[in-house]
This record gives sequence, structure tokens and C-alpha cells, in this order.
Amino acid sequence: MLTGCAVRLTHTRQLQNDHAMPLTRYYTATTLDGFIADPTQSLEWLFTREQNTDGPLAYKTFIAAVGALVMGATTYEWIVRHEHGEWPYDLPCWVFTHRELPIVHERIQLTRDDVADVHARVCAAAGERDIWIVGGGDLAGQFADRGLLDEVIVYIAPVTLGAGAPLLPRRVELRLEELARNGDFACARYGVVR
Amino acid sequence: MLTGCAVRLTHTRQLQNDHAMPLTRYYTATTLDGFIADPTQSLEWLFTREQNTDGPLAYKTFIAAVGALVMGATTYEWIVRHEHGEWPYDLPCWVFTHRELPIVHERIQLTRDDVADVHARVCAAAGERDIWIVGGGDLAGQFADRGLLDEVIVYIAPVTLGAGAPLLPRRVELRLEELARNGDFACARYGVVR
Repeated sequence: MLTGCAVRLTHTRQLQNDHAMPLTRYYTATTLDGFIADPTQSLEWLFTREQNTDGPLAYKTFIAAVGALVMGATTYEWIVRHEHGEWPYDLPCWVFTHRELPIVHERIQLTRDDVADVHARVCAAAGERDIWIVGGGDLAGQFADRGLLDEVIVYIAPVTLGAGAPLLPRRVELRLEELARNGDFACARYGVVR
Repeated sequence: MLTGCAVRLTHTRQLQNDHAMPLTRYYTATTLDGFIADPTQSLEWLFTREQNTDGPLAYKTFIAAVGALVMGATTYEWIVRHEHGEWPYDLPCWVFTHRELPIVHERIQLTRDDVADVHARVCAAAGERDIWIVGGGDLAGQFADRGLLDEVIVYIAPVTLGAGAPLLPRRVELRLEELARNGDFACARYGVVR
């Protein structure tokens, strides 16, 4: 049986981009009851928690291996609204939307194309690096439906909300690959079982 | 920062009943997205997983410290239906229900009283042992609402369902006390922050 410590030994290697193939990864925070935002789209339940930015499954290690982003319209609008006009990524980014949205950075592309078609283009842009599905849950689910999601990495905040935006609103079989505490969070990395 | 291994060192002591006061504990399995049963009340997603019955946060260590049970009507009916008439507990058990239900064991009591009143009676029956809230999520939430829930212990199965019976359908602030892998599961013990 693997333990948190045993799997942590492999963590640095795994999160850096020396896996053989680039991975499509859904990396997100969630409540213990599976919500990635509260019913008012607030992340107040998340930002009040402690984490070690050099700890297990840390964002800066994760993002260093990422070559391209995809996200849904709600996630995109949330970031634009909360980053005060400063787009925080210098990576190619596809935004799935059926609405017209302001484009706040030259590397952002809006799309309403099929996720598999877009995935092929995102992979080409990412090269040997990973693809990050930033959110939301339904977009990650659409990639899973097409067999295009490799990993789900969650920071589980110590709170339940009872309502909100769902983590991954369909049945997806997973395999626990890594588990560790980081500050207030239980952090887990799952492979998607196809 | 605590790690999975560091906290495991304290696990055996914590799960046995040498805490100073008896605890009211909600111990349950859940999917990663916070469902304790699928929409048809099936636990098929749970029973297909591997666990080490001597591992971290194991049921047999937990139940050895329990002196009384409480559960809701749906949980009670599920157990009666799936245990083929053999009630699996020889402990006093209160079943919260607004319906008449068959009583399958002499230590079972049906109640529709206020949870705080019942909690006092359950505590008296449990003596120096713990109280297990078997389920469902809303009953655990009613105890939390009244400040009567001490711990939430979850076995997180490596699957999302997207729908089902919710783990704990309200906002409850938690504090991660213990985290470890057990077989296919991520297991976590939380204190309830009041």
C-alpha cells in the first residue's frame, strides 16, 4: 500500500514535465463536498486557507510544466474580473464560449468548436508541455467524455458548502496516484481510468 | 507542515477512545465530488474499491470506540434491505424518522424528537464511548447546525458521479486533522470548527 510519504517521493518528478507524453490535466481547488465555487461564484472559502507554495502539488511546479490553457467562459470572466485587467498567463489560451467576450491578452482565442478538434490544436501549441484545463467542471467533463482527460489534481479545502459550481458533473473513474497534505488542504492527484 | 506520514503516527491513538471526551462523529464514504450514494441509492461505486481493513482510519478501529449510533430513515432502510434481516450492530441506535418503520433489533429506537434532545439521550447511552452518525448527510448537518458534531471522517472513493445524495448539505467549517491513503481511498479526518 502506498502512503502519503511514499508517493511524495515521486511528486517532484511527476509534476515536472518529464513524463513521456504531455498530459491534459484538470488542476483545481474544491470543497470537501465537490464545489469549485459557491453559488455566487465566490472563492472566499478558498482564499482564507493556508498553503505552502513550495509544498506538495504546488501551483508553481505545476504551471512550470504547462504549455497551453483551456477554460470555459465563466472561468475566463471570473479571472478577468478578479485580476483587474492583468491577465496572469503568458501562454496560449483557448476559451470555450458561445458568447462574444472581450479578449484581454493577445494569446487568448475564443472558440465554439468541438473539444476534440480544439484539443488537437492545443496539443500542437503546447508542444512537449502539458495542457491545463483551468475550469469549469463541465468543460473538464467534456474532455473526459471524449477520452482526452489524463489527470485530475485537487486541492480539497476543509469546508463543505452544500451548493455551488460542481467539480466534475458526470461519472469519471479515477485512480489515486498521489496524496499529501499542503497547509490546510488535502491534495490529491488522480489518473483518469479510461 | 504535517505530512500524511507524520499524521499517521497519531492515528491509532486518535481513533481509539482515549480522547478526553466522547466525540460525535460522522464517518462515511464519499465520492470525490461529495456524494454518499448515487441517484438510485446504490453504493456500487464504493464496494468495488480496495481497502486495507487494518489500515489508516479503518472501520474496525473506529467502531471499537463507538457506544451508540444515530441515523436517518433512508440510511436505516438501506441497511435493513442490504443486510438481509441481520442487523449488523449490537449498540443502541436511534433512527430519525417521520414515518413508521419496522424495528429489526431490540436496541433500535425510532424518534422524531429534536436532535439536541436525542443527542443528550444518545450521549448518556454511549457513556464514555463515541457516537456515530451513520448518515445521511442532512442528519449530520442537523447535528452540525446545533453545534453537536465534533468530527467528519471520510473515505474518498476515486470516482465522481455528478449526482446523488449529498455528503453534508450546508456550510460547515472543518480543520484537517489526519490524512492518509488506505487502498484505493484518500481518507481524511476533520475536526468541526465551531
